[in-house]
Amino acid sequence: MKTTRADPQPADFTDVRATNLAVVLRHLRANGPSSRASIAASTGLNKATVSSLTGTLIEQRLLRETGLSGNRIGRPGTALALDGSAYAAIGLQIAADRLTALAVDFAGDQLLLWHRQFSTGPADPTGAGPADPTGAGAGDPTGSGVADLTGAAAGSGRAISAVAALAQRAATRVRQHGRQVLGLTVAVPGLVSDGGTVSLSPALGWTDVDLRALLTGSLRQPGLDVAVANHAGLAAVAELRHGGHQAQSDLAYVTGAAGIEAGIVADGRLLHGSRGLTGQIGRFSLGPAGSPTLADLAGIDKLVRRALPGFDPAALTDLTPAVEQVATEARSGDPAVLAALRDTGCHLGQGLALLTNLVNPEVIVLGDHYATLAEWILPAAEAELSRNTLAPAAGGARLVPSALGLHAAALGGAVAHLDRIDTGALPAAP
Amino acid sequence: MKTTRADPQPADFTDVRATNLAVVLRHLRANGPSSRASIAASTGLNKATVSSLTGTLIEQRLLRETGLSGNRIGRPGTALALDGSAYAAIGLQIAADRLTALAVDFAGDQLLLWHRQFSTGPADPTGAGPADPTGAGAGDPTGSGVADLTGAAAGSGRAISAVAALAQRAATRVRQHGRQVLGLTVAVPGLVSDGGTVSLSPALGWTDVDLRALLTGSLRQPGLDVAVANHAGLAAVAELRHGGHQAQSDLAYVTGAAGIEAGIVADGRLLHGSRGLTGQIGRFSLGPAGSPTLADLAGIDKLVRRALPGFDPAALTDLTPAVEQVATEARSGDPAVLAALRDTGCHLGQGLALLTNLVNPEVIVLGDHYATLAEWILPAAEAELSRNTLAPAAGGARLVPSALGLHAAALGGAVAHLDRIDTGALPAAP
Repeated sequence: MKTTRADPQPADFTDVRATNLAVVLRHLRANGPSSRASIAASTGLNKATVSSLTGTLIEQRLLRETGLSGNRIGRPGTALALDGSAYAAIGLQIAADRLTALAVDFAGDQLLLWHRQFSTGPADPTGAGPADPTGAGAGDPTGSGVADLTGAAAGSGRAISAVAALAQRAATRVRQHGRQVLGLTVAVPGLVSDGGTVSLSPALGWTDVDLRALLTGSLRQPGLDVAVANHAGLAAVAELRHGGHQAQSDLAYVTGAAGIEAGIVADGRLLHGSRGLTGQIGRFSLGPAGSPTLADLAGIDKLVRRALPGFDPAALTDLTPAVEQVATEARSGDPAVLAALRDTGCHLGQGLALLTNLVNPEVIVLGDHYATLAEWILPAAEAELSRNTLAPAAGGARLVPSALGLHAAALGGAVAHLDRIDTGALPAAP
Repeated sequence: MKTTRADPQPADFTDVRATNLAVVLRHLRANGPSSRASIAASTGLNKATVSSLTGTLIEQRLLRETGLSGNRIGRPGTALALDGSAYAAIGLQIAADRLTALAVDFAGDQLLLWHRQFSTGPADPTGAGPADPTGAGAGDPTGSGVADLTGAAAGSGRAISAVAALAQRAATRVRQHGRQVLGLTVAVPGLVSDGGTVSLSPALGWTDVDLRALLTGSLRQPGLDVAVANHAGLAAVAELRHGGHQAQSDLAYVTGAAGIEAGIVADGRLLHGSRGLTGQIGRFSLGPAGSPTLADLAGIDKLVRRALPGFDPAALTDLTPAVEQVATEARSGDPAVLAALRDTGCHLGQGLALLTNLVNPEVIVLGDHYATLAEWILPAAEAELSRNTLAPAAGGARLVPSALGLHAAALGGAVAHLDRIDTGALPAAP
């Protein structure tokens, strides 16, 4: 008989030590620099154990000593802090209109943030657009030592070359900063299966693209852990660690770019489902075939089309300037634009009520362009969320704009690798 | 700074032993009687550890020796099996039309299953109806040593007296069977907050009924662990353990009685949300205020009204005879009844697609009356589920009828207490 994934595994003393290493690391991440005595007092671990654990962590360059502790427990002791100088991880975010690369070190400091224009469709066979305003490096996108791609689905090959080139460049830069690159996660809108295949991404126009295998083959860096995951789930992970929601264990992040998806954290863990195919709230619809979906009713592209009727639809591959124009006109009080925003908020609130009735989050973070427009969308969304949730006051769910901007998923992609260390799984020596 | 609930707790050797006790118990529950050598070989624990662990479990009367092992590993050894003779737990299920009490022992054997007619509304001030066809005991529902209820919300007091009386009688019977009662969980439709208060149950007409406190006060059994939880969640727990879905870690159970709710198991754990207020799929609706909800479109009561137009709506407090008549007429090929069933299946499939797009379950179990009518509802529901899920083939989700009948939630209420032992938290001595 097959046993379930939830079955406990036999425990041994390695697990005890890993658990206790995790306790020390998470204590320091939550509370900042602390003395050994203060760690012992707060965690319930005895002082000898704390000394042994912190010794290991200093040796592995995950902690460093940093002057005298300001803690008031016992004599002033040397304070310990997370050490970001040895390890970092990279997140790459693919959107229909641009690529983002971001690297953070183990202490949470950002080492780089690069954007480049991008087009996934076969309409732009060069893969990467000519503009590279951030200085991430221009030129042949298949350069930088990246091998030719074979086996990529038609139309996605050159796009993937651009992703690989940017990944390669980011990894090189992080190493120039003296950090070992622990891993790289690519954030993709749409359905990503467990093995890292993009089974379906309507926003990118991709079907069954084995992105993980293609990237791994292209990068030719045997030690590098390459992963691919849904962007909403990664953004939710980033919100938990860097978005001011460290205290939450039940959180949903809602993307508001091309398509609407949700990343759901339940009881502190990302909701994965049986195959990783979760969070498709944009597909919400009830009624006969052809009934409008939530994405039809509350999508950012629909909002832009309604609020800016003169806007050239062909210009909508990059939504950012259009969203900024909507915000400008809302600020000047344009009644038609304000009505379109209110309408988007109403429908979004109804969709979030479905999610809230089902998973009862404590906080729902509005991401991407919804965050930019939150001032006008939130009031209507909150009212409809509350009105359509069976539990009073939306079951306690608060609706807040993301503070992480348009690259939350890239940050989550990097954080995913560093979070693993916080569970006590220390990195192997380089 | 508040730390998150997901933070690891320091590990000590007690945790190691609890984890390993859990490994042994779950191995035996999944695989049936096994020798010590076979347990060691299958779990990776060494033989001395297995001897020590099973010694403790035999002493606690959670395991018993049972003749020779049929396992083929090494010499024939004495086989060990789960011992049900010492401990049991009780589940009570409250529906609008009846109460169910069920007890199972630690080995999974059912000790009792009682039903009694029941009415929650103030329209029936005696609380319990006169009929008690199963011999669970008739007479004054506040008898059996149950104290008077004070502080119950208007209209629910006598109903709760009936619940307390049945609980008291079930506990007495289980003790007559020689088992220690580890706990009692009451399954309720609607929103149940973490403390055991029924905040809102449209099906029962209850608002803010502190059922746990009222029952605990009424039963006056200080050692008895009394809990209250949503019926769909408890039914999902029962399906996982007794419904033939032991291998699944991502399962949804859908109630089909008065109202539609879902119990969701994600990665082996019941989805709890921030306050336990999950699973309200019957409220799904998109569109202007007053748009029909999933319960309006696919509810069993709506099906009965449509399929049996001559049926007296006043008779619908107990849906079972009506559902049986629908099945009879469907079997005889009545086209109007078949159309109503197909229509219910279509709408249910659309609602389950919303759930599937969001949480990607491996199996969706149709409970209660949906299970009775599955033969006619399932084909349309499967087609719509597949058509409305973004992932191909509904993301792998299979739609199956429950094999646990109308008392899955009562079973789950009992199982919840016994599951705790399987995590290595052994019961205290009586």
